[in-house]
Amino acid sequence: MWQIYQFPLCPFSRKIRLLMGEKGIAYDLVREDPWTPSEMFPNLNAAGTTPVVVNEEKKLVLADSRAIGEYFEETVDNSPMINGTAANRAEIRRLVALFDENFYHDVTGPLLMERMKKRIVYKQPPNSTVLRDAMKNAHGHLDYMDWLIDNRPWLAGSTMSLADLAAAAQISVADYLGGIDWKGHEQTRGWYSVFKSRPSFRPLLSERMDVIKPPAHYALVDG
Amino acid sequence: MWQIYQFPLCPFSRKIRLLMGEKGIAYDLVREDPWTPSEMFPNLNAAGTTPVVVNEEKKLVLADSRAIGEYFEETVDNSPMINGTAANRAEIRRLVALFDENFYHDVTGPLLMERMKKRIVYKQPPNSTVLRDAMKNAHGHLDYMDWLIDNRPWLAGSTMSLADLAAAAQISVADYLGGIDWKGHEQTRGWYSVFKSRPSFRPLLSERMDVIKPPAHYALVDG
Ligand SMILES: N[C@@H](CCC(=O)N[C@@H](CS)C(=O)NCC(=O)O)C(=O)O
Ligand SMILES: N[C@@H](CCC(=O)N[C@@H](CS)C(=O)NCC(=O)O)C(=O)O
Repeated sequence: MWQIYQFPLCPFSRKIRLLMGEKGIAYDLVREDPWTPSEMFPNLNAAGTTPVVVNEEKKLVLADSRAIGEYFEETVDNSPMINGTAANRAEIRRLVALFDENFYHDVTGPLLMERMKKRIVYKQPPNSTVLRDAMKNAHGHLDYMDWLIDNRPWLAGSTMSLADLAAAAQISVADYLGGIDWKGHEQTRGWYSVFKSRPSFRPLLSERMDVIKPPAHYALVDG
Repeated sequence: MWQIYQFPLCPFSRKIRLLMGEKGIAYDLVREDPWTPSEMFPNLNAAGTTPVVVNEEKKLVLADSRAIGEYFEETVDNSPMINGTAANRAEIRRLVALFDENFYHDVTGPLLMERMKKRIVYKQPPNSTVLRDAMKNAHGHLDYMDWLIDNRPWLAGSTMSLADLAAAAQISVADYLGGIDWKGHEQTRGWYSVFKSRPSFRPLLSERMDVIKPPAHYALVDG
């Protein structure tokens, strides 16, 4: 059985949970907060980050969500998520990097710092300038997504791919933290509401992070 | 013909140049400084980062160095650099992420900011506390590399892989910027001097970044 070391609002862990859900790979969750790591966690991942995916029977410890994604893509045939020609696959991976790195750096990361870490770890109020900037940055990223969806059925092309899962993972955490203003983003909102109704997504949407409450629309399919 | 949009001290571009060099793929360099992008650069890469790899005959524009690396691995058979079982490949990709993200965040990124961007862009002196911390962080990463090399011929296993190229790329930029103190890191120093003598590496070591001079040992194979 696979185990995922993660916490509910880690977007990289959400991407892997969505991927495993779509591929029908069963997993158990193990709670791990990287800001107060358990004693053995540094031995599992020198980078100190979640997610880490473990399979004791196979004696496997996998770290880094992109390495984990490629592993499942190579070993589990159903629901391919990095598919098509080499050029298509490069486009999927470019977009995964755009969400994992730029969206996270501009939007999800600052929201997690201000609304989650400051509350749980630093016992400080959020910085409202940083929050405002993160929400402004989100509009820029959603504009780019609106444009992609105007031109293609799914973010990276004609079929659902890891790019869609990476984007939905980041957006779902940002939305939980009140960082997404959906006004003016009908294309992305439509794409996202299709996602929210998928069986791979339902368990994520029903989870809560300790003391932090999501906005009322968060788990509603047409919210 | 392939073109790489890059600047001499971009570690992600260096990783791709090493990969193309090892695989024998010819390329031209196009100078692009992401902090003062040329007018068309945002159209090539929405993330605004170097490297971008272009092939006009094939009508291809590839962005994100990991997506680019996977593309060449899939399309050019010689000198495989993401090789072996799915587990081996996951280990290679985990280490690539460790160097691209953690080493860059802890060492190369701060050195580039203090010693390159502050000089060229902000016209400010470097912050010596940040420089000291980056050099201290480098020791931690080199300790981990020493340990890997004690246990394996190459960083990710029995053959040279993209993990070695990613590490050499980051280290070469950090070393150029005076951030690497080799004392106490004989294993990694030995591994790196093998690298420095490879034909793929020689052109990188002879390049200079405008007004910034590397230390005397930088381009010497046993320096
Ligand atoms: N490259 C990693 C990045 C993962 C990452 O940054 N995870 C965050 C949590 S969402 C983390 O563990 N940060 C370290 C910390 O908060 O101390 C991946 O894709 O898995
Ligand atoms: N995910 C990208 C990251 C590349 C990256 O961060 N490049 C730096 C230069 S070394 C950059 O362009 N930074 C943007 C800037 O400096 O404005 C990759 O692997 O290609």
